[in-house]
Amino acid sequence: MITRMSSLFLRTLRENPADAELPSHKLLVRAGYVRRVAPGGYSWLPLGMRVLRNIERVVREEMDAIGGQEIQFPALLPREPYEATGRWTEYGPNIFRLKDRKGADYLLGPTHEELFALTVKGEYSSYRDFPVILYQVQTKYRDEERPRAGILRTREFVMKDSYSFDLDDDGLERSYQLHRQAYIKLFDRLKLDYVIVSAMSGSMGGSGSEEFLAESEFGEDTFVRCVESGFAANVEAVTTPAPPAEPIEDKPQAQVHHTPNTPTIETLVDFLNGAGLGRTFSAADTLKNVMVKIREPSEKDWTLLGVGVPGDREVDMKRLEAGLYPTEVALLDDADFAANPFLVKGYIGPQALRDNGVRYLVDPRIVTGTVWATGADKVDHHVVDLVCGRDFTPDGTIEAAEVREGDPSPDGVGTLVAARGIEVGHIFQLGRKFTDAFEVDALGPDSKPIRITMGSYGVGVSRLVASIAEQHHDELGLVWPREVAPADVHVVIAGKDESVRDGAEKLAAGLDAAGIEVLLDDRQSSPGVKFADAELVGVPTILVVGRGLANGVVEVKDRASGERTEVAVDDAVGHLVKLIRG
Amino acid sequence: MITRMSSLFLRTLRENPADAELPSHKLLVRAGYVRRVAPGGYSWLPLGMRVLRNIERVVREEMDAIGGQEIQFPALLPREPYEATGRWTEYGPNIFRLKDRKGADYLLGPTHEELFALTVKGEYSSYRDFPVILYQVQTKYRDEERPRAGILRTREFVMKDSYSFDLDDDGLERSYQLHRQAYIKLFDRLKLDYVIVSAMSGSMGGSGSEEFLAESEFGEDTFVRCVESGFAANVEAVTTPAPPAEPIEDKPQAQVHHTPNTPTIETLVDFLNGAGLGRTFSAADTLKNVMVKIREPSEKDWTLLGVGVPGDREVDMKRLEAGLYPTEVALLDDADFAANPFLVKGYIGPQALRDNGVRYLVDPRIVTGTVWATGADKVDHHVVDLVCGRDFTPDGTIEAAEVREGDPSPDGVGTLVAARGIEVGHIFQLGRKFTDAFEVDALGPDSKPIRITMGSYGVGVSRLVASIAEQHHDELGLVWPREVAPADVHVVIAGKDESVRDGAEKLAAGLDAAGIEVLLDDRQSSPGVKFADAELVGVPTILVVGRGLANGVVEVKDRASGERTEVAVDDAVGHLVKLIRG
Repeated sequence: MITRMSSLFLRTLRENPADAELPSHKLLVRAGYVRRVAPGGYSWLPLGMRVLRNIERVVREEMDAIGGQEIQFPALLPREPYEATGRWTEYGPNIFRLKDRKGADYLLGPTHEELFALTVKGEYSSYRDFPVILYQVQTKYRDEERPRAGILRTREFVMKDSYSFDLDDDGLERSYQLHRQAYIKLFDRLKLDYVIVSAMSGSMGGSGSEEFLAESEFGEDTFVRCVESGFAANVEAVTTPAPPAEPIEDKPQAQVHHTPNTPTIETLVDFLNGAGLGRTFSAADTLKNVMVKIREPSEKDWTLLGVGVPGDREVDMKRLEAGLYPTEVALLDDADFAANPFLVKGYIGPQALRDNGVRYLVDPRIVTGTVWATGADKVDHHVVDLVCGRDFTPDGTIEAAEVREGDPSPDGVGTLVAARGIEVGHIFQLGRKFTDAFEVDALGPDSKPIRITMGSYGVGVSRLVASIAEQHHDELGLVWPREVAPADVHVVIAGKDESVRDGAEKLAAGLDAAGIEVLLDDRQSSPGVKFADAELVGVPTILVVGRGLANGVVEVKDRASGERTEVAVDDAVGHLVKLIRG
Repeated sequence: MITRMSSLFLRTLRENPADAELPSHKLLVRAGYVRRVAPGGYSWLPLGMRVLRNIERVVREEMDAIGGQEIQFPALLPREPYEATGRWTEYGPNIFRLKDRKGADYLLGPTHEELFALTVKGEYSSYRDFPVILYQVQTKYRDEERPRAGILRTREFVMKDSYSFDLDDDGLERSYQLHRQAYIKLFDRLKLDYVIVSAMSGSMGGSGSEEFLAESEFGEDTFVRCVESGFAANVEAVTTPAPPAEPIEDKPQAQVHHTPNTPTIETLVDFLNGAGLGRTFSAADTLKNVMVKIREPSEKDWTLLGVGVPGDREVDMKRLEAGLYPTEVALLDDADFAANPFLVKGYIGPQALRDNGVRYLVDPRIVTGTVWATGADKVDHHVVDLVCGRDFTPDGTIEAAEVREGDPSPDGVGTLVAARGIEVGHIFQLGRKFTDAFEVDALGPDSKPIRITMGSYGVGVSRLVASIAEQHHDELGLVWPREVAPADVHVVIAGKDESVRDGAEKLAAGLDAAGIEVLLDDRQSSPGVKFADAELVGVPTILVVGRGLANGVVEVKDRASGERTEVAVDDAVGHLVKLIRG
């Protein structure tokens, strides 16, 4: 196909959009791929449509290759199935809800586990029917609090979501690995620089959830990696190696000190170091007790929970939430403190928690024999030399402390460094949460029902357009990988002579006949404007037809390297076909 | 590609769905193309997806062929642009509205005129930029009061909507004709039996709007046609030929009669025929005056309007609304009658309307010199021999009377018959309603602004699946036209012998290698079950590999005609490729 820029619905912009910070956002708008039409809502202009469709095609090919079958659900979904799984409530303000003319509740689907589970239940009934992998490439909705970064975080977006249905855990593991391999192929084809990170899945089992993050300094997801071992994980999935237990016998007795005006770790450390206790304290020697309240999904009432971490670290609520999932977590409010007067703000210690029957979980570093300075449950008082396993005994450990660069890698090799990425894929062994909710069973060979186990797997299709742009651009514009580019060759007519125009038209026609997608700049603009637009638009190969034509040559420019090659006009089509087809 | 029925996500059903009346609905569900998941919401199973995608492909090809450029807007749209054109209110309960987490108003787009107009305004500014045709293939939403007939009338559906932008009326006419021709090609390719009917567009000008209706006895749209002339139109678009005016001089004087208990036309006719007036009256001799109230779009208050039609016809509110559009129409309620005591229910005549300054529009049949029996504005009284142009003078004519079979065709040739169809396409010269609302101008060659004129053109893509099924089925199942079929060949393995299976697999592989889409029934079911499913699923060509294989033959069955041909195994691939490629 030949696309003529003289009639293409495209106006490139010289200025960056005022609200854009990310290169991908600036360039996709400037080069006329997308336009903002609402908060968190973008339209796809012709070039953007092509990149989006190319990505969709690659995604479909890789899903089909693992036996995935494409189906499609409505985006407008009734409340009932989501009520049955509790997600109608769980989603809180993050989904769009609406009522129809009869007052019935609907939502705009953010993800479709319920519907897929119900559909498989409706169609399949025998163990012989399984396994099955179903997918859709569909428009999804989330009422994001802060849509941002152009098409990277929008409220309406295209996702590929697939779901596997297996008879047993081994089957689920196979379906999971099929998706993992498919995603690797897919992101490789898209020339994406990505890492696969372990994603916390709390009580679901850690190994059954991984995220594919496109590396990007502007990514919203922080992850940590170990350069030495190749380990990479979400901070939620980082486990803290526990140091060996220490002997208790040689430790001094715990002593309560009057420590006026020391409600913070900093003030406490300063006080202790000025108190002539014969040694130097650091924040890491103190034990910080953070109070939260938790609630099981099925319960109505909250219960208190104490979380103890070394005083040099904050509690990372995302890690804490992931560690307790599906139990809900919230910080205490004033009413909670008022209702529990034994909690002395700034001076909470393990003693009061034990005495009042409050569950107490600690960071894995807090092992038997470690010695701590912590609150004495009384204003302006702290206890020093409080020994774990002697003076207090935690109810268990919890990964709640923040992860920092330099922390040891959980695999025991080297230390962690932090990095940022854009989540472009997620694979997740869901298990039986949804099949339990809807009683999705297969009749086994012994005529007994087998509860089906599910996996769910997402690819952020529209977000990939931005992720690829984020990794493939330079100061002049976009530099698309060949597989997703809006055209194969950008033919620039660089001259006003009839002969130049004719020559370019002939070359374009020759390329088109060879099945090459041509973007032909046949506008009346100056060569300078055309060259700048070619760099901005980012088709991987630029063919310049200009003055050289009189001498029988045209110029082939590689957009990525900037390398220019003179090619004889008569060889140009053959040269380009070879270049593009490889 | 080879699709294996042993793993295809498909379970055909023997029973029709309880809620289904239309053949297409029954068969698409029974053959596993779609499933109902919500009121007016359907999922597309794998076979359904393929038919839908095939239709989308054909639609795109025909749109691209007329220079249409594909873009895509969100479905979730902010209120403001629809407020600006008044459609936020006009749509009433027919659209889905919702609020985001910040309380801002949104709607789910039923059609996108506003967004397209705004986008063209944003990108284009010079007369050199025009014309342009933009389109999208998109999921649309309407809060239908009565979703029905499976995927024929749903609340979420796929539409192709395109919009043309031209500098002048001639340009709009060209864009309109381009679409008209594209739609003809498109529906011809889909093997649809359709009529193009004039659609009323009220004040917008009649010729600028046509609907493409797939003929179907179950269609929701009634239209009329003239067998003799080929004329076809929506009832809203039918014009009534006016008879010639008659002389007034020879008519008898009008006389008021006491006509007790004659509030209906029927009772009046009976009374008159029993009153010894020397002639026989029929309902067509009476003048029925129907009172409505109307309101201009910009006004707050309603005003009365009298509509006079021959007493043998009802007022067709859709025709009346179309004739008055964009003026709003409503029936009078009791309060209106109470406020206007000169309106004597059942006995309203033209006299009281004139005396009270009420506008009075009549059917075109009511011409000067025609003689009528009508209400005398007094309970139990009618006037006979009331002559139009002598005793009353209407303020104009209006197409409000129902259209009936046998009515003369507006083109003067033959009479009208009624028929039903499913609206699958609509082309419409919108004019400047939306470009006026958003001031979409192009700078002309003289640097003066030119207000752009728009056309809007829709194709009901998902509805086409049902429309085609409605026209292409028999008592055994679906019979897809080749262009949209979910596969090219349905290969049935009719036998349990290893050799039969091997032979079928080899043929399937050979067909696949030749680029033929194969649906391979490799299930362990009986041949009977497989044959029945092949008929039900409706792939146009069925290849039966069975016992004949031992003698070197296979059977090719044409799904539509039922014709069977024995073909030598070695020629089978070649035979089928020729058959399919034509």
